[in-house]
Amino acid sequence: MSKASLMIKHDVLKESKQILVRFSEVDSMSIVWHGSYVLYFEDAREAFGKKYGLTYQTYFDNGFYAPLVDMHFEFKHPLVHGDTARIEIEYVPVQAAKVIFNYKIYREKDNMLVATGNTTQVFLDSRYRLVLYNPEFYTEWKRKNNVL
Amino acid sequence: MSKASLMIKHDVLKESKQILVRFSEVDSMSIVWHGSYVLYFEDAREAFGKKYGLTYQTYFDNGFYAPLVDMHFEFKHPLVHGDTARIEIEYVPVQAAKVIFNYKIYREKDNMLVATGNTTQVFLDSRYRLVLYNPEFYTEWKRKNNVL
Amino acid sequence: MSKASLMIKHDVLKESKQILVRFSEVDSMSIVWHGSYVLYFEDAREAFGKKYGLTYQTYFDNGFYAPLVDMHFEFKHPLVHGDTARIEIEYVPVQAAKVIFNYKIYREKDNMLVATGNTTQVFLDSRYRLVLYNPEFYTEWKRKNNVL
Amino acid sequence: MSKASLMIKHDVLKESKQILVRFSEVDSMSIVWHGSYVLYFEDAREAFGKKYGLTYQTYFDNGFYAPLVDMHFEFKHPLVHGDTARIEIEYVPVQAAKVIFNYKIYREKDNMLVATGNTTQVFLDSRYRLVLYNPEFYTEWKRKNNVL
Repeated sequence: MSKASLMIKHDVLKESKQILVRFSEVDSMSIVWHGSYVLYFEDAREAFGKKYGLTYQTYFDNGFYAPLVDMHFEFKHPLVHGDTARIEIEYVPVQAAKVIFNYKIYREKDNMLVATGNTTQVFLDSRYRLVLYNPEFYTEWKRKNNVL
Repeated sequence: MSKASLMIKHDVLKESKQILVRFSEVDSMSIVWHGSYVLYFEDAREAFGKKYGLTYQTYFDNGFYAPLVDMHFEFKHPLVHGDTARIEIEYVPVQAAKVIFNYKIYREKDNMLVATGNTTQVFLDSRYRLVLYNPEFYTEWKRKNNVL
Repeated sequence: MSKASLMIKHDVLKESKQILVRFSEVDSMSIVWHGSYVLYFEDAREAFGKKYGLTYQTYFDNGFYAPLVDMHFEFKHPLVHGDTARIEIEYVPVQAAKVIFNYKIYREKDNMLVATGNTTQVFLDSRYRLVLYNPEFYTEWKRKNNVL
Repeated sequence: MSKASLMIKHDVLKESKQILVRFSEVDSMSIVWHGSYVLYFEDAREAFGKKYGLTYQTYFDNGFYAPLVDMHFEFKHPLVHGDTARIEIEYVPVQAAKVIFNYKIYREKDNMLVATGNTTQVFLDSRYRLVLYNPEFYTEWKRKNNVL
């Protein structure tokens, strides 16, 4: 049996979100302040959540919180005020009770890759205790979206 | 000759900064929003810069910008509104034309480690072109502080 | 001659901008944090600037800055995470060398008025000195848009 | 009976808070972005709350929220990165069920007044309904502090 046939085949879940750089996101070097990218990632995560039904509200309605435990940014080229950027977010399937996303940000006018990164979320129950198993609603969500 | 005697001995440059968690830094989970840690790291970097003479103004006065090209955060325990935290920042000596810091954030009341991370800055000249060599002022700064 | 016929008739310059409430804009009361409205007003101002050709870049290209000197907010009803809101911005014609806007924010789902406010900007020259007369480019802009 | 003797004599409740302008608070005009002042007012309000026992937690523990319904800023002189500023906050006694503060921000190095403003908070109960009477804990707080 070939190796390929043993590999788990997941669907690729992704979403894309366009943002316009705000004046307030630019620093005194006249480029987008690195902290603004936290918001760009969040915008992408919310767009993904809306598309696939996995939002903060989904977590909450099922009795969980899903705070970030890890985030990483690499900045390759600066964005400036007035630039339009496109954030591509992709779900990373893992067996652990985690929600992991990869991000790529492109400048729209020339499709230049300006930043990449990733975030990891874990589950806390309503008393803020870490949940080590996959919550049932999340396993269900993974099954439905073919990323189990 | 022993290996130890060949090792470069750098001074350890570090600073510590206390912050009080603001109401606006807390999200609807009632814990500090992950994006707020970008500000905490920045606060620590500014305190370090003041202590050792390596601030945004230092870069600028020497004809350079020093934007972040990489930042990484790991969140271990949540902070809540009203908590006092202590950010410890340490300079990481490298030969490349980079400014690298490690960070550790502790909750003051019980000294619990709540977050760690690091940032990397590079040098751009006044026309925003990447500078691959160590700027003279920076080499001088490293020599003076015994981290060359 | 009637009073009405003596009144200056200006065009009404307005723009409308839709925003989606971000998770990070919500505070631990689970409503949008008051400071987030500063961004909403800014979003509206940028949309207006794009439509009518009066942006930070316009000011800058003509040798001026136009910082805010006054801003006022009234909050009538809370917005929550996931709400869509519509910001309506209207230019307020005045003879003084000022740029004044009125704002109204509505919750889209039921058209409820959630906040109002206004901002005033003045002109500084490139050396940050207050400019008391109307810059030529601005007078020209007012004439062209029939708000002189 | 003279007019003066009829006037209510309140104690003046005030607090002062020093802040250091962060790099991220400065915009591409190299001056503090107007939105940053929302944080400065909040810092002052929290310092006041700590001193006099009237914080978000106080409201919450008594079953109330106290969101802002009005905020106003006047900017007189710009602050720049590295400036130290002093925010003076003063409680404004009123009979209505409101918490009103006046603010003055000074640049420390020359005591120049850079901004003024005020905020008004109202009380909501735990179901977010407006409370028109003074909550008992607040009346008690006013009595204790001689501002009733």
